[in-house]
Amino acid sequence: MDLGTVIGIVLIMALLLGAMSMGVGVGAYIDIPSVLIVVGGSMGALMISFKPSQMKKFTKIFMMAIKPTIEDEVELIKKLVDFATKARKDGILALESEVNNEENVFLKKGLSMAIDGSEPDTIRELLEIDAEQASVRHKAYGAIFNQWAGLAGAMGMVGTLIGLVAMLLNMADPSAIGPSMAVALLTTMYGAIIGNVFGTPIYNILATRNEDEMMVKQMILSGIMSIQSGDAPRVLEAKLLAYLAPENRVSQFD
Amino acid sequence: MDLGTVIGIVLIMALLLGAMSMGVGVGAYIDIPSVLIVVGGSMGALMISFKPSQMKKFTKIFMMAIKPTIEDEVELIKKLVDFATKARKDGILALESEVNNEENVFLKKGLSMAIDGSEPDTIRELLEIDAEQASVRHKAYGAIFNQWAGLAGAMGMVGTLIGLVAMLLNMADPSAIGPSMAVALLTTMYGAIIGNVFGTPIYNILATRNEDEMMVKQMILSGIMSIQSGDAPRVLEAKLLAYLAPENRVSQFD
Amino acid sequence: MDLGTVIGIVLIMALLLGAMSMGVGVGAYIDIPSVLIVVGGSMGALMISFKPSQMKKFTKIFMMAIKPTIEDEVELIKKLVDFATKARKDGILALESEVNNEENVFLKKGLSMAIDGSEPDTIRELLEIDAEQASVRHKAYGAIFNQWAGLAGAMGMVGTLIGLVAMLLNMADPSAIGPSMAVALLTTMYGAIIGNVFGTPIYNILATRNEDEMMVKQMILSGIMSIQSGDAPRVLEAKLLAYLAPENRVSQFD
Amino acid sequence: MDLGTVIGIVLIMALLLGAMSMGVGVGAYIDIPSVLIVVGGSMGALMISFKPSQMKKFTKIFMMAIKPTIEDEVELIKKLVDFATKARKDGILALESEVNNEENVFLKKGLSMAIDGSEPDTIRELLEIDAEQASVRHKAYGAIFNQWAGLAGAMGMVGTLIGLVAMLLNMADPSAIGPSMAVALLTTMYGAIIGNVFGTPIYNILATRNEDEMMVKQMILSGIMSIQSGDAPRVLEAKLLAYLAPENRVSQFD
Amino acid sequence: MDLGTVIGIVLIMALLLGAMSMGVGVGAYIDIPSVLIVVGGSMGALMISFKPSQMKKFTKIFMMAIKPTIEDEVELIKKLVDFATKARKDGILALESEVNNEENVFLKKGLSMAIDGSEPDTIRELLEIDAEQASVRHKAYGAIFNQWAGLAGAMGMVGTLIGLVAMLLNMADPSAIGPSMAVALLTTMYGAIIGNVFGTPIYNILATRNEDEMMVKQMILSGIMSIQSGDAPRVLEAKLLAYLAPENRVSQFD
Repeated sequence: MDLGTVIGIVLIMALLLGAMSMGVGVGAYIDIPSVLIVVGGSMGALMISFKPSQMKKFTKIFMMAIKPTIEDEVELIKKLVDFATKARKDGILALESEVNNEENVFLKKGLSMAIDGSEPDTIRELLEIDAEQASVRHKAYGAIFNQWAGLAGAMGMVGTLIGLVAMLLNMADPSAIGPSMAVALLTTMYGAIIGNVFGTPIYNILATRNEDEMMVKQMILSGIMSIQSGDAPRVLEAKLLAYLAPENRVSQFD
Repeated sequence: MDLGTVIGIVLIMALLLGAMSMGVGVGAYIDIPSVLIVVGGSMGALMISFKPSQMKKFTKIFMMAIKPTIEDEVELIKKLVDFATKARKDGILALESEVNNEENVFLKKGLSMAIDGSEPDTIRELLEIDAEQASVRHKAYGAIFNQWAGLAGAMGMVGTLIGLVAMLLNMADPSAIGPSMAVALLTTMYGAIIGNVFGTPIYNILATRNEDEMMVKQMILSGIMSIQSGDAPRVLEAKLLAYLAPENRVSQFD
Repeated sequence: MDLGTVIGIVLIMALLLGAMSMGVGVGAYIDIPSVLIVVGGSMGALMISFKPSQMKKFTKIFMMAIKPTIEDEVELIKKLVDFATKARKDGILALESEVNNEENVFLKKGLSMAIDGSEPDTIRELLEIDAEQASVRHKAYGAIFNQWAGLAGAMGMVGTLIGLVAMLLNMADPSAIGPSMAVALLTTMYGAIIGNVFGTPIYNILATRNEDEMMVKQMILSGIMSIQSGDAPRVLEAKLLAYLAPENRVSQFD
Repeated sequence: MDLGTVIGIVLIMALLLGAMSMGVGVGAYIDIPSVLIVVGGSMGALMISFKPSQMKKFTKIFMMAIKPTIEDEVELIKKLVDFATKARKDGILALESEVNNEENVFLKKGLSMAIDGSEPDTIRELLEIDAEQASVRHKAYGAIFNQWAGLAGAMGMVGTLIGLVAMLLNMADPSAIGPSMAVALLTTMYGAIIGNVFGTPIYNILATRNEDEMMVKQMILSGIMSIQSGDAPRVLEAKLLAYLAPENRVSQFD
Repeated sequence: MDLGTVIGIVLIMALLLGAMSMGVGVGAYIDIPSVLIVVGGSMGALMISFKPSQMKKFTKIFMMAIKPTIEDEVELIKKLVDFATKARKDGILALESEVNNEENVFLKKGLSMAIDGSEPDTIRELLEIDAEQASVRHKAYGAIFNQWAGLAGAMGMVGTLIGLVAMLLNMADPSAIGPSMAVALLTTMYGAIIGNVFGTPIYNILATRNEDEMMVKQMILSGIMSIQSGDAPRVLEAKLLAYLAPENRVSQFD
């Protein structure tokens, strides 16, 4: 579980519930029909906006944002440099057992192709298509949450308008105006909370995770090309370390 | 009929009608002149914004969003690999009957050119123009719905302002203020519903469908180039499978 | 006169005037000082935003959006293919009389250069500069209408604020509050109408017209290059037809 | 002084002052503390947003937008073609005196390099860096005005909120509510005026001026390359005329 | 400490506090729960939006915006030209001691590689990866402040809605309405101040600093390539001076 996400959500919820309980109590802010309009309405609009095959992954993507699988880039560089050293000494075929135990499917696929003797251009083209299409898919998943932010806000406004119209047509009892208006405003509030606690932030973090993954894939592609062409492991390491922030650059050759 | 779209529209409508009927009844939310201002006004603005030849396709595009023709990418890869295998064994002319029965016009056109002996560069240029211009046309169709969202919202605001001015000039009878204001707000509500149920979501799904189609065309172009140059079917399949999500990659050679 | 534009403007105006006349009458919505603030103010802001040489073309561009000169692409392809056929049979010099009668200046210029024996690279570079700079100029003209939409809306808001302040300082007579506020809202309404009936829609259609023109110029450039290099007219036609939607592709060779 | 800018500013000011004086008089719209919050506050936010070296040029850029130095492109083409003719006849060294009297520093620099015998690639690289970095600096100056529009609007809103809170805490005297609210709204009005009369329009015109300058530099670069390689002046002129709108294309060879 | 930033923040704070103290006193604008909702809530949303490793740098980036390390570009050019002169006279190995004392890590790394005899293409690729990835990281840090602006504004709105609902449910005592509404508005005010004093301006300045750093790195890369290939120092200087504004271009050769 990503600590930042958990702390973030807990912090916001604690603050909002605290603010609500200070005034009229949390109960006054809960209205099931309003929740249904905003959550159900925005989900409905998302179902029109995206393919069923994309929407099916909604909760899976949500969990991935909260509990991401993170690649340790320092370890990855170490591994790629080790591979390059071994391949230079004993030939690329010597990497066969390493490939079989490799868990990163992208690295595994590229390296098996190299061992099988595929042309470098073929490996590069295939891995680039793979990385690019994965990024296209990930961006589409992120777009779901970005759209959710906008559509939840819009459905919140529609809900408030429905409530306002009802209130305006029922102004005989002045004491009912306040409470009616209060309920009408709840959908706008739900829309803003969904959009700014789940929609936009999860869109942001998914975009960052995708960029990280793309960088890792670029590093792997660079590594495989170097291993196949028999470059010096030292040069490969220098190139891969250039991807990292200066404080994370540790060479195994020093 | 795309299930997601249908469920989405039904869900939103049920929720909105439910919310309306809970208060003052659905009837209070229906006002024909207001509907005319928002729908007619935004349609009028779309007619200025786009060419008649584009607007004529409005309902056709709407239906395409709801009931899309979906290319099965796994089947497509199987077919292209089969073509490559046959062409490699019996020569490219052996594909003549397959081409005649082919339903995908893009694949059919490219493959006939290859069989007729056109230069690979000519085929590539022609198919790329074809794909790119189709994408330009599709994006323009999507833009209609994107603009609709904005223009319906704006016309809703204009309608509300017209209503507000009328109300402000008629405040002699205080009991009429509420209902007048309620009616004035209806156009804003209609604008928000049109924009966020039809405008933006349909724009989104059309953009996704266009990207899918572009990817399929890229795959076909890749396939035709490989078939013409006599690449190994195994290599072609590997390249095409790289376009798919890992869980959909099934090789016929395993 | 472009039918779509005319119907669009008439439709919107009829709906708005209808809505106004239903309540307090159209007269209540007309306030000359308010019109001056929004129209004059936004025009003033446009005069700061753009060069006098651009602003001078304001009405000309407006008329071009309403009454565009449309190139018939099917006819154009026919003509280019005819030119290619003639040039292949009788030499490129045989096109001299056709060039002299040609009305499309872009085609005329390119073809004369080809007949005069200019280098293909020179022709391509010159035509590309010509097309690109024309597009830059057209986009700048479109930007005038896009900015108009935003600035008219903003001037409408400024007008409403001026009116609101006046009203708030004059609340001694309660019966005057309604009418004062009504007048204050008129500038916002004018701003929204200008922006969403003239500003944004005309910006949209100008962008579409420019893209169409760019495509036609690309087709002409393609045609001239083919004619000069003596390509087969059939290949040229196939390439040019790829620019069109499938339903408009009619070959003269079938 | 650019006539368009002057007329634009005078027109807007006359309209706004006219509208103010029609109601409660211009004096009611002037509130020095409110002016200070919006102008001072937005300037403060600009000082955080940009480097001191950029902010120092604020008034200089403002004046450049109002009183631009305009390059006469027709004259420029004439000059470049004359240079090319002379260089072709008497050698490039014959341009020495022309270069010394040249006022356009970009042209002067490129031409001196050509006369000094620099490599064409060196000249092109250096001039391209020069043009690109000038454009980067100009865009940053434009961004100041674009940000000003947004920040003045935001500071106007902050000012209104400060005034509203004060008003809401002082509702004992009902007759004071109107005037307090009126004053509170003034900051929003100032923000909107600054943003839409100075911010956005000046950003627009600076962007146009920068594009014009970039085009002129492209033309000069094209000219210098042609002069150095001894191209025919007629071909150079044709290429340069292609940058202009058709109605401005006058050849000296006709 | 960057003077512009300090003056900017002090100026805004003085103006806002002055405006507050003129009416109901600064105390009326301070409400700790409201501060907590806006600051805590937006920080929580940022923690969901970004990786913990990015958020940890929040204050460090904030300080970097206020107190930037500025590279003196004129000095840098002087140094690079000196290096080029020395390398041309005594060979590139003569730069060893200069490299050891060099503080700019980017320059140091590139130059050591050149001295060690790495291939120019390897140096270029490595430095380009280094510069590009640094820019990606910096843009992500800037994005934190950009998102902060939006999320603080949104949390301000959520806070105001919570307050409004509480107020609307408690309208029995009319005298409490004003103060309740005043408190409700405070969160919106805090959100606008955070967004427009810290969020957007710091995002702006970080973007400018990153572009400056990228330009310096481009200049260094250009310099190292020239030094390694033994270009004339005069040509190198001319190329590097082209990056600067004309008024800052001072040649050591004049």
